[in-house]
Amino acid sequence: MKAAVFHGPNQPLAIEEVDIEPPKKGEVLVKIAGTGLCRSDLHFIEGIFPWPAPSILGHEAAGVVEQTGDGVTSVQPGDHVVFAVTPSCGVCRYCAAGKPYLCSAASGSHMMKDGTSRLKLRRDGRLLFHFLGISSFAEYAVASEISIVKVRDDAPIEKLSTVGCAVVTGVGAVLNTARVTPGKSVAVFGCGGVGLNVVQGASLVGAWPIIAVDTVNNKLALAEQFGATHLVNSAREHPVLKVHEITGSGADFAFDAVGDVDVLGQAFDSLDRGGTAVMVGLSPLGAKYAVDTMSLFNDKNLRGCAYGSASIHHDIPMLVDLYLAKRIKLDELISRTYPLEAINEAFDSMKKGEVARAVITF
Amino acid sequence: MKAAVFHGPNQPLAIEEVDIEPPKKGEVLVKIAGTGLCRSDLHFIEGIFPWPAPSILGHEAAGVVEQTGDGVTSVQPGDHVVFAVTPSCGVCRYCAAGKPYLCSAASGSHMMKDGTSRLKLRRDGRLLFHFLGISSFAEYAVASEISIVKVRDDAPIEKLSTVGCAVVTGVGAVLNTARVTPGKSVAVFGCGGVGLNVVQGASLVGAWPIIAVDTVNNKLALAEQFGATHLVNSAREHPVLKVHEITGSGADFAFDAVGDVDVLGQAFDSLDRGGTAVMVGLSPLGAKYAVDTMSLFNDKNLRGCAYGSASIHHDIPMLVDLYLAKRIKLDELISRTYPLEAINEAFDSMKKGEVARAVITF
Repeated sequence: MKAAVFHGPNQPLAIEEVDIEPPKKGEVLVKIAGTGLCRSDLHFIEGIFPWPAPSILGHEAAGVVEQTGDGVTSVQPGDHVVFAVTPSCGVCRYCAAGKPYLCSAASGSHMMKDGTSRLKLRRDGRLLFHFLGISSFAEYAVASEISIVKVRDDAPIEKLSTVGCAVVTGVGAVLNTARVTPGKSVAVFGCGGVGLNVVQGASLVGAWPIIAVDTVNNKLALAEQFGATHLVNSAREHPVLKVHEITGSGADFAFDAVGDVDVLGQAFDSLDRGGTAVMVGLSPLGAKYAVDTMSLFNDKNLRGCAYGSASIHHDIPMLVDLYLAKRIKLDELISRTYPLEAINEAFDSMKKGEVARAVITF
Repeated sequence: MKAAVFHGPNQPLAIEEVDIEPPKKGEVLVKIAGTGLCRSDLHFIEGIFPWPAPSILGHEAAGVVEQTGDGVTSVQPGDHVVFAVTPSCGVCRYCAAGKPYLCSAASGSHMMKDGTSRLKLRRDGRLLFHFLGISSFAEYAVASEISIVKVRDDAPIEKLSTVGCAVVTGVGAVLNTARVTPGKSVAVFGCGGVGLNVVQGASLVGAWPIIAVDTVNNKLALAEQFGATHLVNSAREHPVLKVHEITGSGADFAFDAVGDVDVLGQAFDSLDRGGTAVMVGLSPLGAKYAVDTMSLFNDKNLRGCAYGSASIHHDIPMLVDLYLAKRIKLDELISRTYPLEAINEAFDSMKKGEVARAVITF
């Protein structure tokens, strides 16, 4: 198969022929229909987070089951599936406590669970490392059964790639993590793929006002389309002051969908007493945010968020239902599609802030 | 009446004759039965937090209604009442949103609501400033009706002084703020008046294990009496390592009942993924805690806490019921009682860590 191979930080991904082994016990081979480019992938490509090379990155994807390994019971060939960045084993202490988004089976391992790789370069037979158990920048991917979620097959599968990462994270941060309720005020900092989903999650639950903050006007225009009621260009206006002005007393909820400590500070400072700031974005290793502890005495909260606090087998099919019911948008998230060969160009357009999501289709 | 007058930072309180005016509209005159010494009072005496002098401090108190002003409907002379540090007006945006612990009527004002004082020094007629609308280091106090809560009169009123501050804050932090559920692991940093109440709150809701951390052995012994299942002397053992060792994977909940950024850091670091640290104590102005934002991505939470997230007219009578039902301890909180004349000596024993609570009785 063809795949985009990561050969080390700050090098373009190389389109190469790769051999992929059939799925072993508990594993599934999926033909990728679409795979989104997430900023986290970029962090790995840029070396902000380390990942061994050569490897195949990519973790936001959907496709069709091609083949199943022994013992796989939840899917069969032909099923439409979405990859979950965090698997759900169902039996670890986190899954069992209702926190499957912290599933112990999620590992930062570079291999499949049995410690081996299913991927090698055809040209020299060298092993390739896996990525988060997914490695979707390729025509096919082998994943553990617990990392894939079956979805209804009347939804266009190539449009569902974003559901397993940006959508479940952003909408989940509102529904599950923060549990925003109708009429509460929400400020969303950063209107990329995740931030737009925070906005549409807030819209779905009847929050008001929904204040979108970004430095790029076309992202703000998108945010309006996704349900934002107020737009703040933080390159031109002080976002904290604007949020206080719009809400009167500060926001009930503020989301950092950028993953930057300064943005997190703006989110936290935008809160009303008793408000909750949610860090949705992934921040660089070692980043620290200095919380004013007196503000905690005002019942302010700084809420972490792992993968939208999602229960994948509940939330991912639900999001597909909501999409088909036209209660959430997926098509509009995909600003542009690219063939696999143009993946570096697709990352460039992300870096330039030109796209909500760029998606590779096959 | 006699009162302990604050004449400025780092001076002993002076026992002096003070004139107190009758209650005006919406106000109540209460004969103080007992008033606890809270570390927050000490912060003001030591000038860590500023308060104008001369004034009468004291905010943790219970007593009997002596006289009511016009329009007062919730209490009448002879009623037993507990003072609430944060009033509940019932109609502001916070009270109406179910967050009466953030009531807008709570002011840091040095005067009664109408901008005047009911207190003056007899010797020279000088006005005295009020303190948090309570000023209980005196034989009598005038407070707004919304700052006092009627309680059943079959409980010994002089034992109820701690209910309105240490007890409602500590137990409330567990029940209301963190909403700890049975079987969850809890670590409590600091076993003073508030910390012991966090411990007994955790015991009440069936948490396990309940790990008490302090540097003073007799406070740890008290914590055991209040329901702690494990004791860690942090002067001799590394509390973070011990909490991880006892729980296996970190605590589900950790409470900083000291109000110190280093202690808050220990609490946060003691957490399991998905865990919640609650800052219960009041920290010095300007203190900042540098949160590792990557830990937020592990769904860790830093939860502020205002006054135990209490609804005073629900929680304070409930705590008195639980006390009489022997489900929570109040008597054991009161390590020593002192007459008003010995108030400086009582503060000294607090500073030495000799007491859970020292209470002035009349």
